Amino acid sequence: MTGDIRTPVTVIGMGSMGRALAEAFLDAGHPTTVWNRTPEKAEPLVARGAVRAGRVEDAVAASPLVVTCLTTFEDTREALEGAADALRGRDLVTLNSGSPAGARETAAWATAVGARFLAGAVKNVPSAVGAPDTLLYYGGDRGLFEEHVATLRVLGGDTVHLGDGTDLAALYEMAVGAMLLPALVGFFQGAAAVQARGLPASSMVGFAGKWLDMIKSLLPVYAEEIDSGDYTDAASSVNLFLAGAAHDEELAVETHVDTSWIAPLNALLERAVEAGHGEHSIAALTEVLRVGGNPSEERKLTADH
Amino acid sequence: MTGDIRTPVTVIGMGSMGRALAEAFLDAGHPTTVWNRTPEKAEPLVARGAVRAGRVEDAVAASPLVVTCLTTFEDTREALEGAADALRGRDLVTLNSGSPAGARETAAWATAVGARFLAGAVKNVPSAVGAPDTLLYYGGDRGLFEEHVATLRVLGGDTVHLGDGTDLAALYEMAVGAMLLPALVGFFQGAAAVQARGLPASSMVGFAGKWLDMIKSLLPVYAEEIDSGDYTDAASSVNLFLAGAAHDEELAVETHVDTSWIAPLNALLERAVEAGHGEHSIAALTEVLRVGGNPSEERKLTADH
Ligand SMILES: NC(=O)c1ccc[n+]([C@@H]2O[C@H](COP(=O)([O-])OP(=O)(O)OC[C@H]3O[C@@H](n4cnc5c(N)ncnc54)[C@H](OP(=O)(O)O)[C@@H]3O)[C@@H](O)[C@H]2O)c1
Ligand SMILES: NC(=O)c1ccc[n+]([C@@H]2O[C@H](COP(=O)([O-])OP(=O)(O)OC[C@H]3O[C@@H](n4cnc5c(N)ncnc54)[C@H](OP(=O)(O)O)[C@@H]3O)[C@@H](O)[C@H]2O)c1
Repeated sequence: MTGDIRTPVTVIGMGSMGRALAEAFLDAGHPTTVWNRTPEKAEPLVARGAVRAGRVEDAVAASPLVVTCLTTFEDTREALEGAADALRGRDLVTLNSGSPAGARETAAWATAVGARFLAGAVKNVPSAVGAPDTLLYYGGDRGLFEEHVATLRVLGGDTVHLGDGTDLAALYEMAVGAMLLPALVGFFQGAAAVQARGLPASSMVGFAGKWLDMIKSLLPVYAEEIDSGDYTDAASSVNLFLAGAAHDEELAVETHVDTSWIAPLNALLERAVEAGHGEHSIAALTEVLRVGGNPSEERKLTADH
Repeated sequence: MTGDIRTPVTVIGMGSMGRALAEAFLDAGHPTTVWNRTPEKAEPLVARGAVRAGRVEDAVAASPLVVTCLTTFEDTREALEGAADALRGRDLVTLNSGSPAGARETAAWATAVGARFLAGAVKNVPSAVGAPDTLLYYGGDRGLFEEHVATLRVLGGDTVHLGDGTDLAALYEMAVGAMLLPALVGFFQGAAAVQARGLPASSMVGFAGKWLDMIKSLLPVYAEEIDSGDYTDAASSVNLFLAGAAHDEELAVETHVDTSWIAPLNALLERAVEAGHGEHSIAALTEVLRVGGNPSEERKLTADH
């Protein structure tokens, strides 16, 4: 294939995200074949120049690179079931949410039928697909990634290979995603508190946004502490957070808000103090969250001295 | 006082934050008097042009505007005890952390001794004091704020009067601050998870930062839903989050991380579903967090229909 001819791509799954992926490939000039279980959903893409395959095996056979965007890994395997033969010698890239185990099972299946495999995640909404700073990360076959990186970058300028593990995208998805619900509940609690004083929730949006910027700026510092296992140079100590925790009950009373969901967080702070981390950085909570202790003796030594 | 002569200012408390405040006033050309319980801590400021007062009452008498930055409201009242007479007819601004009740008590005391009173908060670190986008917000005497706003803005370009309530800064501090520990614990859990796979915590910093940007972009939408009480146009529903919650146990097993602190968050999701919010926006959790129900019948009606 010369530099002038764009790799033909097949997109399987014309949900909100799959449609956005196919549109981005079409916009970038890739011959694009599409398939969806409910065929009508592919029509807007055909109007934009895509070829619609009648059967999933025809869709797979149409392109060397096959991108799926179905709801789960289970749905993906179910949909591809009949296309096992067509997948031999092709490159399969999944872009759905799911668990690390689901990614590994799909990888095993894809490898068994003779395809190279990469499992990725789109870290944004469909309307952001194709933008220069839209993040997609992938784990799995490095050869596949390197060969198709220019094509994959069509979906988002911030395209990253995390490593050879086919479950790495799912792992990072879970790891990073763990901040979402707790941060939002914190915001909702604050909103209920200002509303209890007759003030609109919108009055705290600007302040909360600045606060998130501040939290963002702390992450590299905390990551370094966690990686080195050295928590002794504490800008904000566990004890400082524990002192703040004493005000939670007061907040609940002041603002008529149920703060009971915070209790286990305060219990983590207390466990950290018991483990000798009172004057250490708040990032030392990471040690308390590990079920099996520190991952390496080396880190443990650094942390203790 | 003409526009050319800067208001003389007294700063009480030469801790990390108090020193930064006094430096900013000096840099902006304000005649600055300082006082600290442990006098040596004021020396670097004297070297930069500040006048050190020997007694707290002399410090108060030196300027029309007195800014305190001690550890708590209790410390502030204790330190100012002997300066009650000197405070008559002056303007007192506190810039410590504390509870809404602590702010109200300090306001009552200040008003009783004949001072105007404003309680504020510096929403940043000492090194950010004086920067154009550094946020400080204040609640209390509007006349004091308006008269001294140019002087107060020396401490940070984003200087806001929240309203007449002297406890408003403390209230917003608590409301906005509620996001910090939960978001950090989410990050630490993710860090432990990637480390359990032999990967450094630093490898998730960039992804987590983008994720916080995404969360920030959602806040105006959620605030609007909360203010209108209309959660029906759901980009991400409570049920969607509940489906994700099913993976928490899997994450714990996969990554040897203790995820038990998340259980009460999932319980909130379930309570929201029971209250009929399953297909509503995740912001409907705000209704579940209120102890006394909705603040107004009007909002309740909008939410129900
Ligand atoms: N939308 C977003 O904002 C977003 C953002 C990041 C990641 N994601 C992830 O991207 C994936 C797709 O999301 P989406 O928003 O596009 O979902 P969606 O709009 O609900 O579409 C789901 C797609 O999966 C297909 N499908 C489901 N089960 C199937 C099966 N057993 N066999 C064949 N096809 C099946 C559906 O086909 P039918 O049309 O026939 O039902 C449809 O094409 C999900 O894993 C989601 O978590 C979405
Ligand atoms: N540092 C930050 O990043 C930051 C950010 C935002 C808000 N704040 C808030 O700003 C306030 C001050 O913080 P900081 O970092 O400057 O604290 P700090 O470095 O610990 O200094 C505390 C100051 O309070 C004085 N003090 C405490 N109790 C006193 C008492 N009973 N009588 C007289 N003086 C007393 C101390 O005097 P001695 O020197 O004699 O002990 C010292 O000047 C706190 O409420 C803090 O939460 C700090």
